[in-house]
Amino acid sequence: RSTASHMAEGSSSKLKDFPHLSSSQRALMGDLINAIEDRFEDRLLPCTLPPDVEYYQNQSGNSEGALLIRSGSPDSSINFILASWLHSQLPTGASLNIASLSAYLRPSTDAPNFLIEFIQSSPTSLILILDLPPRKDLVLNPDYLQSFYEDTRLDTYRKTIEELPEARPYIMSSLFFRSLVSPTSIISRVDTESGGPERMEEIIKNHVGPIARDMVRVWVDECACKEREVGMMERVEIEKRDGLIKKKTIDIDLGSSLPRLFGQEVADRVVAAIQQVFDEA
Amino acid sequence: RSTASHMAEGSSSKLKDFPHLSSSQRALMGDLINAIEDRFEDRLLPCTLPPDVEYYQNQSGNSEGALLIRSGSPDSSINFILASWLHSQLPTGASLNIASLSAYLRPSTDAPNFLIEFIQSSPTSLILILDLPPRKDLVLNPDYLQSFYEDTRLDTYRKTIEELPEARPYIMSSLFFRSLVSPTSIISRVDTESGGPERMEEIIKNHVGPIARDMVRVWVDECACKEREVGMMERVEIEKRDGLIKKKTIDIDLGSSLPRLFGQEVADRVVAAIQQVFDEA
Repeated sequence: RSTASHMAEGSSSKLKDFPHLSSSQRALMGDLINAIEDRFEDRLLPCTLPPDVEYYQNQSGNSEGALLIRSGSPDSSINFILASWLHSQLPTGASLNIASLSAYLRPSTDAPNFLIEFIQSSPTSLILILDLPPRKDLVLNPDYLQSFYEDTRLDTYRKTIEELPEARPYIMSSLFFRSLVSPTSIISRVDTESGGPERMEEIIKNHVGPIARDMVRVWVDECACKEREVGMMERVEIEKRDGLIKKKTIDIDLGSSLPRLFGQEVADRVVAAIQQVFDEA
Repeated sequence: RSTASHMAEGSSSKLKDFPHLSSSQRALMGDLINAIEDRFEDRLLPCTLPPDVEYYQNQSGNSEGALLIRSGSPDSSINFILASWLHSQLPTGASLNIASLSAYLRPSTDAPNFLIEFIQSSPTSLILILDLPPRKDLVLNPDYLQSFYEDTRLDTYRKTIEELPEARPYIMSSLFFRSLVSPTSIISRVDTESGGPERMEEIIKNHVGPIARDMVRVWVDECACKEREVGMMERVEIEKRDGLIKKKTIDIDLGSSLPRLFGQEVADRVVAAIQQVFDEA
């Protein structure tokens, strides 16, 4: 292991602790991050976020969050990976936990990105987002649809989750995010009220976990590590499209939830740091 | 009313009879076709399909279908409208009924198309597809998403159907069709086993009907009748995209179901006639 990789691990321990996740979720998120870090080892630069963005909290201390961003080295297909968690005690007594990992590729390839997100407002209620979001219009590019979504049989994973008795499809409020995800995306609400938190653990461990590990492997092998020919014109369009996605992610996703949970000052600091990485990447 | 319009009505009476639909579905399909025909009156050319494609059946007579295609006149924004029904007695004793109406625009505009489809395998089970499918990548074109999907508040219609206790999301098997529809698409399975066929009638009459009529009005006013600026490059891409959609519709949709229900000879005849209109349009 390179020094860079060790440095990154040192500085990002707060992130990788996932202190508020259940044990099966914590194990899964750790495995997914490791799967990517191990494979790309020295092609991922250390996280350069300031300490008060790597870990942040609000004034009253009832909301805290951690962030890890590692850019790919210039010769890597990876633009950056972004891992994040946040925890907030809600006025209702419940607590909100969000944990996510996304991996973005560079415009030198048109292959899909990777995304997993857990949103939990109670130990028996989970919104799961797990996808390889495409980076091209799938209607205009049926070969792309074939290679990355048909041939990889990603829909069998979606079906497996869909068939869990506790799962039902979840519709995201943002039309932009709905447009962004793939036709094989797993976007589900899992409610285990009758089975309790134990059943949720079982679902994560025995169903979501194996699928997420498989999908990250598909992403690494078939997306991040496959050479793709991208013409100049196409590259410009992919760059524009990637840029719009990053902008909307900040505007819609972080821009609304962070100020609400952490206050404007903390939110501005975290968003500015992410913005800077996005701009430089 | 022009002679052309009357001629078209005369020759397409079989289609407009919808003899196998329930009364509320028949009334709705008639209203939707009329809404478009009335608005575009003399800008829709008469249907030129051969009689054995306007109405067709299989040898044993247990499957029958009807088709109406009217191309837009050269000065119209409409490429063509296509209405269709088919009815088949299944070996199981049940019967399959499919009725659809789609309206395609020309590449002189980038505005969305219109699509409604009813698929019924029993009087208490309906798959409903109702959408304004976009003609551009929505991720790359957030203004387009805003104009046609946010500002038109189409998602309120989707929500209304989603909230019916008998409705649940339906996932189409084709990844291509999943990619084709908009983020506000209504793609639902409605099961009214406990309420019986009467409840299905009520849902069509009081919920699906008003929404479908509203959506066709949105399509006519905001899509078919709005001037849009489309650059040369963009036009080429829209033309290519439209062409791919037509090709896949024939390959995936008609190409598999028609031979199964009507035998290869009838299927070939119907598909060739549709192909010809697609090619000329």
